[in-house]
Amino acid sequence: MPEYKAPIRDIKFVMQELLDCETHYQHLGYQDASIEMIDAILAEASKFTEQVIAPLNQIGDQQGCTWNDGAVTTPDGFKDAYQQYVDGGWPTLSQSEEFGGQGLPHSLNTTIGELLSSANHSFAMYPGLSHGALATLEAHGTEEQKQTFMPNLVEGRWTGTMCLTEPHCGTDLGMLRTKAEPNDDGSYSLTGTKIFISAGEHDLSENIIHIVIARLPGAPEGSKGISLFVVPKLAINEDGSVGGSNGVSCGSIEHKMGINANATCVINFDGAKGYLIGPPNKGLNCMFTFMNAARLGVANEGVAAAEASYQGALAYAKDRLQMRSLSGVKNPDGPADAIIVHPDVRRMLLTQKSIAEGGRALNGYLSQLVDISHAEKDPAAKALAESKLALLTPIAKAFLTETGLECTSHGVQIFGGHGFIKEWGMEQLMRDTKISCLYEGTTGVQALDLLARKVLGTKGEIMKPFAKDVTEFCQRNATDADMAEFIKPIMTYAAQWQEITESVGKKAMANADEIGAASVDYLMYSGYLTLAYFWGLMAEKALEKLKASDDDKAFYQAKIKTARFYFQRILPRAQGHASCLANGADSMMALTEDEFAF
Amino acid sequence: MPEYKAPIRDIKFVMQELLDCETHYQHLGYQDASIEMIDAILAEASKFTEQVIAPLNQIGDQQGCTWNDGAVTTPDGFKDAYQQYVDGGWPTLSQSEEFGGQGLPHSLNTTIGELLSSANHSFAMYPGLSHGALATLEAHGTEEQKQTFMPNLVEGRWTGTMCLTEPHCGTDLGMLRTKAEPNDDGSYSLTGTKIFISAGEHDLSENIIHIVIARLPGAPEGSKGISLFVVPKLAINEDGSVGGSNGVSCGSIEHKMGINANATCVINFDGAKGYLIGPPNKGLNCMFTFMNAARLGVANEGVAAAEASYQGALAYAKDRLQMRSLSGVKNPDGPADAIIVHPDVRRMLLTQKSIAEGGRALNGYLSQLVDISHAEKDPAAKALAESKLALLTPIAKAFLTETGLECTSHGVQIFGGHGFIKEWGMEQLMRDTKISCLYEGTTGVQALDLLARKVLGTKGEIMKPFAKDVTEFCQRNATDADMAEFIKPIMTYAAQWQEITESVGKKAMANADEIGAASVDYLMYSGYLTLAYFWGLMAEKALEKLKASDDDKAFYQAKIKTARFYFQRILPRAQGHASCLANGADSMMALTEDEFAF
Repeated sequence: MPEYKAPIRDIKFVMQELLDCETHYQHLGYQDASIEMIDAILAEASKFTEQVIAPLNQIGDQQGCTWNDGAVTTPDGFKDAYQQYVDGGWPTLSQSEEFGGQGLPHSLNTTIGELLSSANHSFAMYPGLSHGALATLEAHGTEEQKQTFMPNLVEGRWTGTMCLTEPHCGTDLGMLRTKAEPNDDGSYSLTGTKIFISAGEHDLSENIIHIVIARLPGAPEGSKGISLFVVPKLAINEDGSVGGSNGVSCGSIEHKMGINANATCVINFDGAKGYLIGPPNKGLNCMFTFMNAARLGVANEGVAAAEASYQGALAYAKDRLQMRSLSGVKNPDGPADAIIVHPDVRRMLLTQKSIAEGGRALNGYLSQLVDISHAEKDPAAKALAESKLALLTPIAKAFLTETGLECTSHGVQIFGGHGFIKEWGMEQLMRDTKISCLYEGTTGVQALDLLARKVLGTKGEIMKPFAKDVTEFCQRNATDADMAEFIKPIMTYAAQWQEITESVGKKAMANADEIGAASVDYLMYSGYLTLAYFWGLMAEKALEKLKASDDDKAFYQAKIKTARFYFQRILPRAQGHASCLANGADSMMALTEDEFAF
Repeated sequence: MPEYKAPIRDIKFVMQELLDCETHYQHLGYQDASIEMIDAILAEASKFTEQVIAPLNQIGDQQGCTWNDGAVTTPDGFKDAYQQYVDGGWPTLSQSEEFGGQGLPHSLNTTIGELLSSANHSFAMYPGLSHGALATLEAHGTEEQKQTFMPNLVEGRWTGTMCLTEPHCGTDLGMLRTKAEPNDDGSYSLTGTKIFISAGEHDLSENIIHIVIARLPGAPEGSKGISLFVVPKLAINEDGSVGGSNGVSCGSIEHKMGINANATCVINFDGAKGYLIGPPNKGLNCMFTFMNAARLGVANEGVAAAEASYQGALAYAKDRLQMRSLSGVKNPDGPADAIIVHPDVRRMLLTQKSIAEGGRALNGYLSQLVDISHAEKDPAAKALAESKLALLTPIAKAFLTETGLECTSHGVQIFGGHGFIKEWGMEQLMRDTKISCLYEGTTGVQALDLLARKVLGTKGEIMKPFAKDVTEFCQRNATDADMAEFIKPIMTYAAQWQEITESVGKKAMANADEIGAASVDYLMYSGYLTLAYFWGLMAEKALEKLKASDDDKAFYQAKIKTARFYFQRILPRAQGHASCLANGADSMMALTEDEFAF
């Protein structure tokens, strides 16, 4: 199993040097989030994820969760590790002080989320789901609901879920059938079956608080008739203590490709007592308010997977002796050279490295936009951040999970046949990561969200603030010879991005299917360009550091070399996507259903 | 689990209409291989793979093989199915009549191989490995060895393996340590440990015949000191019957990402009695003679996986109702439209379809080249076929397994979250197929074989016969307006292929690492172009058929539409590869080992 080491140096580069989180936090009023405090938290989080969480990753995969008559048991060690997680105060980190949280910024939690997910994707999902439930309650719950549910969720004594999917509807939530009938006391009785409920049932916490979408009697059809409810697994007594059954049960758990240690549950609601959150029939709108944060969490899983796979593959590539370098023997005293000398092994390693580090910068930036959406006082600055977040979130979610999956596949390849063997842990990363391309909206759903809803839905307006950032970056480096190798391609690709957008927009006016036909290639193009911009920013910062002093020279030089690799060997892939999407929808819409098979 | 249906109509199109196997077989003297006979065999093979082999695929994955004190038990149903396979005479199909075979051409067996592998990758490997052992014995064994081992292997009563890999060497076989000490009776005693031996131990056959590479005492170091041996698991008595233990034992089996129903074994040789095959120290050369056929078998697994995943995804896409088409409601009576109306779902389906069908044509052609290498009397024609085979085999192996894996990933995506659940069988296809990118030489190894050994090693000479075929195809269609959409891009990409080859060749003279740095992108470029050529051929044939009669009109029209999709939405990906490789090796060689992580 690859040994996990939290990439603290790189995280500090991104959050502290590149994104100047100190100024950012001070501006937003997070006075406690000093560099000293952050460093202490990162050190503790490293220790915890490396020593407690990572060692459970493989056993979690092997044992999986077990279901017995409605009860779900997590793998050996999970219960204890979760208790340590709670005792360490980790669930409280970025939660409101009002409900027992530490009031630290969201972006700090995103960083810890990457460490947790690299160490153990399945484990990380348990607290991850609680964040979704908490965000919903905080944004849309009544004061009484907040007081009832939030303190225990914040503490981690209770965990949360999001109950959306039903057997016949995933993407298309408007088709949902779960019913909520009003009771005399203002509560509702919920009846229906939800599937794919991550962390839906387990033995880690005293109670599980489900956020459930359901239909009120007479609700409009489709997505306009969806309401949101909070439904505890166990009833809550007047004094706030946990009572008896509330008509919520786990019917079974799924057997899956990966994330075996996270229970994916069928949850049955049989007249379960729940409480309406937010206005009736506005459930989807309520959920959109934190959808960006949830999707950013999944984007982070892509980065976490790329990082974990990179670490495993790098160690192996330095250790494994096989064949001689074509350009001359590199290890004359050994029977062969370490495989890291072979260019194609380096290509795979550097692909992993450039995606992990580039993705970390993108996600770090996005997590600061989330901070701003939470805490910025100036409405214009807040709106600007939210607009950038809306544009970049589907890109980060889909692009970083697709490339994250690719990186885990490279990790297996670098190990050769050994990569296919469970013992090494490389194939688990690939199996675990595939889910990130599926949940919280598949890659195809993100691509439509980006192109149809966000870009074309605003006639391109939403692109302008980000495009302006890119242009300003290029302008301020326009005369810097050291930056030319990065600035020129960014300008070229950014201009082509505009052209592609306009071209698809025009075609879409004649035929709406042009949008779906272009969407995934468009998203991938956008992703390669976006990461190029962040690699450009990192190169700029590294050059600045190198000019300023001799400290950490090797680190900054490696950063520039990795940027160069990204621009030379990864960014040009965007040309393939541009060429494909330029050919439009006709060839994919031409076949009748019957013509697909004979 | 997706229900498998052998794609007989398409196989007939490829083998009979496109590649005119009737003429091909008659020319080579395969008088029995009439269309009537082939059709009867295909019908039987369809029934057998659909009804006997495919239903065992999922249970095989769930149960896996079990090891108990050296004995390996295959999953429920495998033993009986294998017996039916033997009783049906399937192992004998393309084997020499001299040893009890039916003497039918290799290419027919390749077709059956695709059906078996689509139905059940793990099962298909058991007879697949026997073919490798048989080919070795037939090409290099003594008459006595052939008589001793071949009849039972041909019948399927015994199975075979290839024992190459050791813990410290996979790609780099020159490092092997297994020793062969000569005995007084002319036999050898083999001692050493082999790993990753597929079908190395199991309960399907009476005996297992291992083809083993080992070192003779005083053999030269490296790959020039490798000799080949045949080593039976159980000793063979004078009368040819199976005797007692021969010092061969299975130490354990691996727990893997996929192909769980095929036993991947550690095989220990403890003074096992073996017999030298071919000249001493020429073991690797002997193996190269059938390496192309073995790699083609793996290329076929890529096609088989794309086909199986396509079938599952297509059925689901027609059935699953979710969201409305952006271009207007298509299923007004239902609560939503079938997802096959959505362009991006079609993009994924057509990617699967165009890779499966294009790959089938390429592999069909290559299997005919193997026929020629076996049975052609004219030495010049034989040499020409072998030269094309040498060029195209690494392309087919790596390109079709990488794109095959991609297709299985699309299959999971089309199912959304359900794709991640084992029950549906889509994720198994992805797990099973990853091995095809690894064994028989990883994608990186194939790419080096193509670019370093084959293309640059012959100063491009090896490309000429295939390039000539492509040119002739373009010339004969130069004035056909219906073919212009295919011919123009083939000419453009073929010209660019030459330019890229020359450019890499020039760079490589200054720096040999340029070869490895370009290799995988070069291979993928070659793959997209090669498949374009075969799609061009198929379009030409389909147009010819449409002009000739009204029979099967829909089939031929669909073929042309799929060709169009390939040219418009898949081939342009090659531009990304061309752009990446044009940037050379510098950025991937620049980092020192220490600079990869801090």
